[in-house]
Amino acid sequence: MDSIHSMMMWTMKVVGLALVAIPLSVELLGWFLHHRRTKKPLSEVLFFPSELACLEHIFTPSLLCSCYCPLPHGVETSFSRLLRHLLSASSSLDVCVFAFSNMDLSRAVVALHKRGVTIRVLTDNDYSAILGSQVGILRKAGICVRCDADSGYMHHKFAVVDSQLLITGSLNWTITAVQGNMENVVITQDPDLVRPFIKEFHRLWLLNDPDRKRSNKQKPAHVTAGAHD
Amino acid sequence: MDSIHSMMMWTMKVVGLALVAIPLSVELLGWFLHHRRTKKPLSEVLFFPSELACLEHIFTPSLLCSCYCPLPHGVETSFSRLLRHLLSASSSLDVCVFAFSNMDLSRAVVALHKRGVTIRVLTDNDYSAILGSQVGILRKAGICVRCDADSGYMHHKFAVVDSQLLITGSLNWTITAVQGNMENVVITQDPDLVRPFIKEFHRLWLLNDPDRKRSNKQKPAHVTAGAHD
Repeated sequence: MDSIHSMMMWTMKVVGLALVAIPLSVELLGWFLHHRRTKKPLSEVLFFPSELACLEHIFTPSLLCSCYCPLPHGVETSFSRLLRHLLSASSSLDVCVFAFSNMDLSRAVVALHKRGVTIRVLTDNDYSAILGSQVGILRKAGICVRCDADSGYMHHKFAVVDSQLLITGSLNWTITAVQGNMENVVITQDPDLVRPFIKEFHRLWLLNDPDRKRSNKQKPAHVTAGAHD
Repeated sequence: MDSIHSMMMWTMKVVGLALVAIPLSVELLGWFLHHRRTKKPLSEVLFFPSELACLEHIFTPSLLCSCYCPLPHGVETSFSRLLRHLLSASSSLDVCVFAFSNMDLSRAVVALHKRGVTIRVLTDNDYSAILGSQVGILRKAGICVRCDADSGYMHHKFAVVDSQLLITGSLNWTITAVQGNMENVVITQDPDLVRPFIKEFHRLWLLNDPDRKRSNKQKPAHVTAGAHD
């Protein structure tokens, strides 16, 4: 009886241990598989100058076979990758670039606007007025563009797609930069990098609100008047 | 006897199961804890213009209390963070910047060179000759500087520390950029971002090897001569 009793006790101990160990293993295995499945955030680097290639299939995919321009077709270049990332926007695109004169990039931004994507463009005032600037074309299309008129340059060259994809680097949005210069563009979904850029864009956007600027310009007069009172 | 036999069989099954489940749980738990412990690669963003502050304690930490310059002391700024990251180099620093006229950045690079860190600086030829360029000072200190003389600008603004930390953005290494402009610098250890920049630096470094350039310049004459044969 004693041996049966001690065997039963021992069995109960083993069963208890198994009851803890089995669900624990299953849970940890599930966690492990989940982490294996979770897609790594996108990290990509593009270098310029970009090869010259036809971009029509990026704007209108069905045209791939019907474009007869003399440029190479169906070639993936740094610039076509950049355009694809921008055109992947489905809800919002925030652009903050010193110089914006590249017509293909302007075409992409206008196409997104027509698709209903909320676009905000912030650029440097000094560059916005020069020949070739796309600011007029963007505004004519109904896109909200703000210009920074501070003494220092608004020298950024970044964009945030759908508040989750950051596109940043040395590349101004000009033809010279894309086709002539040695440049880089980093594309990342790392939240630790995307979040600060979203915050900085928001800060600069508010800072360059024309209404706020106007009221700020009027304020000092009142303050001065107050000081004279 | 039968009941004892079936109980023993059942016990053996439970024991067998436990023997599989327990080491599995222990192993998975170890894996889980290891992944928790593994440090996340650094991701940081710095925005400029940077506040003005004394930087002496970054170059010579013991001086923290003995510097009496009129600038604020002990303040961490975007620029001091940038300098700290550069000065963290222990084996190599590759710099690839369009404009390099900032004396504090030049001081940091020379300090690293004196510490025995292998430095390579690649800059744009057009900018290297202008007033304030630090190229002469770097070369005088014995640092290897190569200048890109291609028709397009070498417009990059990046550095790679110890082949594992990437520092890149819109910021040229000038005083105006640091103190006057709105700029960004991304600092990351993400290998998917660092690796392409290491590769690109290597490519550009070889491309701008003065010996190679010289021999390339001589080659066409031979080729032409050959064609005439």
